[in-house]
Amino acid sequence: MQERPSISKATVDRLPRYYRCLRQLSDEGGDIVSSEELGRRLAINPEQIRKDLTAFGQFGKKGVGYYVAELKESIGGILGLDQHLSLAIVGMGHLGAALANYQGIARLGFRLAAIFDSNPVVIGTRVGERRVEDIAYLAEIIAERNIQIGVIAVPAAQAQIAADQLIAAGIRGIWNFAPVKLHVPPSIPFVSEDLSVGLSALSYYLAHRGGESDVLSEKN
Amino acid sequence: MQERPSISKATVDRLPRYYRCLRQLSDEGGDIVSSEELGRRLAINPEQIRKDLTAFGQFGKKGVGYYVAELKESIGGILGLDQHLSLAIVGMGHLGAALANYQGIARLGFRLAAIFDSNPVVIGTRVGERRVEDIAYLAEIIAERNIQIGVIAVPAAQAQIAADQLIAAGIRGIWNFAPVKLHVPPSIPFVSEDLSVGLSALSYYLAHRGGESDVLSEKN
Repeated sequence: MQERPSISKATVDRLPRYYRCLRQLSDEGGDIVSSEELGRRLAINPEQIRKDLTAFGQFGKKGVGYYVAELKESIGGILGLDQHLSLAIVGMGHLGAALANYQGIARLGFRLAAIFDSNPVVIGTRVGERRVEDIAYLAEIIAERNIQIGVIAVPAAQAQIAADQLIAAGIRGIWNFAPVKLHVPPSIPFVSEDLSVGLSALSYYLAHRGGESDVLSEKN
Repeated sequence: MQERPSISKATVDRLPRYYRCLRQLSDEGGDIVSSEELGRRLAINPEQIRKDLTAFGQFGKKGVGYYVAELKESIGGILGLDQHLSLAIVGMGHLGAALANYQGIARLGFRLAAIFDSNPVVIGTRVGERRVEDIAYLAEIIAERNIQIGVIAVPAAQAQIAADQLIAAGIRGIWNFAPVKLHVPPSIPFVSEDLSVGLSALSYYLAHRGGESDVLSEKN
């Protein structure tokens, strides 16, 4: 895929929201959508949406709107969702189990290819179609199954070890759920989920009741 | 608390990240921090940081920087974290259990005051210090324990019912983890967590390797 170095992180962060919204519109049977309607659903300025989408090419017709199916497919391609990457979850506690059961992974075209844990009680048990593997075989299984993304769902104290093992095994990217700052080489992209951001934002809106709740409720 | 209608959603979304970074700096023993250092840690333009913080008052000294403890406390106050709001989790599957064990809730000053489920096998079991309550008593317990925030951790198909029950019980805000669009009155602020956004962003960075990974790895 081409490099598009001019696209800002803020735009990249909005693309999954566009994709999700277009998928909803598609599920609802929508053919065409205006930047105004997208803006209303996403609480993003329509001007911003037009600017973001222009950066990737021509997806709409002036005065008509965007073709939902076409735009959805294009953004999916830009996001790399058409590559159907494989994931491995490390850590089969409650969080790992919740992620293993999370349907959003498959819905975005990703494949859950392995689950690892170090606890002998958990190893060999099944989560959906998958058997929990012994973390001792992490490197072999990641290579064998050509797994590209490592999902860290272990406690904070073990997260760096898990990251190091995944990187040594040749993983290409990391999705981190442990509440800790990971040290990862710059060649490995990673995203850390931080639940405290959402909870703090909710707290802010509760402390400052005003017109904001409308905006907030359109967040997704 | 005062209303500050001029503050944009984008700024509000950055405040928890500032707060988290200041807490880390404070844990590291830092006294003073420049907007440049904050910018480096958060991958946010220092100009933007200065602009955001100016909107809330004067927190620093020119040529010196921001006082970490003072700024952290101020942002905590703006976020309403000093109100020590109480939460109730509805749904004690893997996700609910992961949230009940999530230390970030207490670290931000929130209190987990109740856990509800409808499954007789789960009701009465303990999660940490808390007993799982029968959802039939949701309204009474929310009133008795003065719970302000409802956390929805039930499957998508039950999420709207849970939201309706929480709202009828007088909850003030909703933190939703079910992958579904909730219908909530405008008077009730809510935040929905959507994991597919983080995974899609990671996929983008994997598809378009370039200078972005540095930025990404500074996300938190």
